[in-house]
Amino acid sequence: MHYPEPISKLIDSFMKLPGIGPKTAVRLAFFVLEMNDDDVLDFGKALVNAKRQLTYCSICNHITDTDPCRICSDSHRDDTVICVVQDAKDVIAIEKMKDYTGLYHVLHGAISPVEGIGPEDIKVPELLKRLQDDKVTEIILATDPTIEGEATAMYIARLVKPTGIRITRIAHGLPVGGDLEYADEVTLSKAMEGRREL
Amino acid sequence: MHYPEPISKLIDSFMKLPGIGPKTAVRLAFFVLEMNDDDVLDFGKALVNAKRQLTYCSICNHITDTDPCRICSDSHRDDTVICVVQDAKDVIAIEKMKDYTGLYHVLHGAISPVEGIGPEDIKVPELLKRLQDDKVTEIILATDPTIEGEATAMYIARLVKPTGIRITRIAHGLPVGGDLEYADEVTLSKAMEGRREL
Repeated sequence: MHYPEPISKLIDSFMKLPGIGPKTAVRLAFFVLEMNDDDVLDFGKALVNAKRQLTYCSICNHITDTDPCRICSDSHRDDTVICVVQDAKDVIAIEKMKDYTGLYHVLHGAISPVEGIGPEDIKVPELLKRLQDDKVTEIILATDPTIEGEATAMYIARLVKPTGIRITRIAHGLPVGGDLEYADEVTLSKAMEGRREL
Repeated sequence: MHYPEPISKLIDSFMKLPGIGPKTAVRLAFFVLEMNDDDVLDFGKALVNAKRQLTYCSICNHITDTDPCRICSDSHRDDTVICVVQDAKDVIAIEKMKDYTGLYHVLHGAISPVEGIGPEDIKVPELLKRLQDDKVTEIILATDPTIEGEATAMYIARLVKPTGIRITRIAHGLPVGGDLEYADEVTLSKAMEGRREL
């Protein structure tokens, strides 16, 4: 005898999520049984709605429930600057900072020859198309500080440079609140390299 | 600017689950956006169905989609033995072992004076009612090896003893595959106490 079918189905669904193994899935499924009815109904609706109502912005490829997204359609934002990121979550991280007022471009990935991901597989052509109307004066490359992220930044920089648009890369260095003692050598060398006059 | 509403609702729902904080909730919600439509729909349905279709067995209080549950209504099982557990998950753990052929009684908790949980708040009265038809000859107390579990076992043992029904407690000792060196003193002393002739 195993779990009654309704709960085993729920366990299977939980197990499809990343980082959730069989034991956690069972724990979560049993927790759902103890939740109140409305919360469970809301959860179910939220799942289906998130999938149904969210699309990608036709301009910047950020996830959105309106097209163009709220950032692209906000006239208060500076449309001369585009910040290029790998992922929709990166947009949200930068938005939380509340300092940046330009637009975004979400690549949905990074160039990775090992995994066979080329510039055409991520939204690089779409970025180049956005640069054609001569409005953009700066591109900030905020891809991840990983090999793939750096390669992607280098690739885009080389493509865009001839157009005369200013192209910058976010700084690498010690994270604020971090401890120099525990920093890895690469970060430390980047921090040294990027040192500034006080 | 925050998350688009459909995804922030999904994040909120994930955060209601145990052990899932804001960062994990965001990660899971974004993962859902990448899942295929059918899987998400199944997940949503599984949630609602688990809540709607599952009830507790009117005899043993195990979760079930039929009443009485499959164990209680299985005529091949030995209805003279009842194994008392705290939780529906415990039933499933014992069933996985495939050794036990008796029935169960799920208490849905344990006596805990600290949290104000008395015998009436868990399914102790229901257990006593089941003993009235004189069929049962043994009760196996398989509550957790915690203070509350032990107290509950002791309490039930004291109540049932006068009826002449055999009452046993599952053994405490070293877990199989465990390491004596790392066993805590209480477990070790229980293991010594419960030693058997070879």
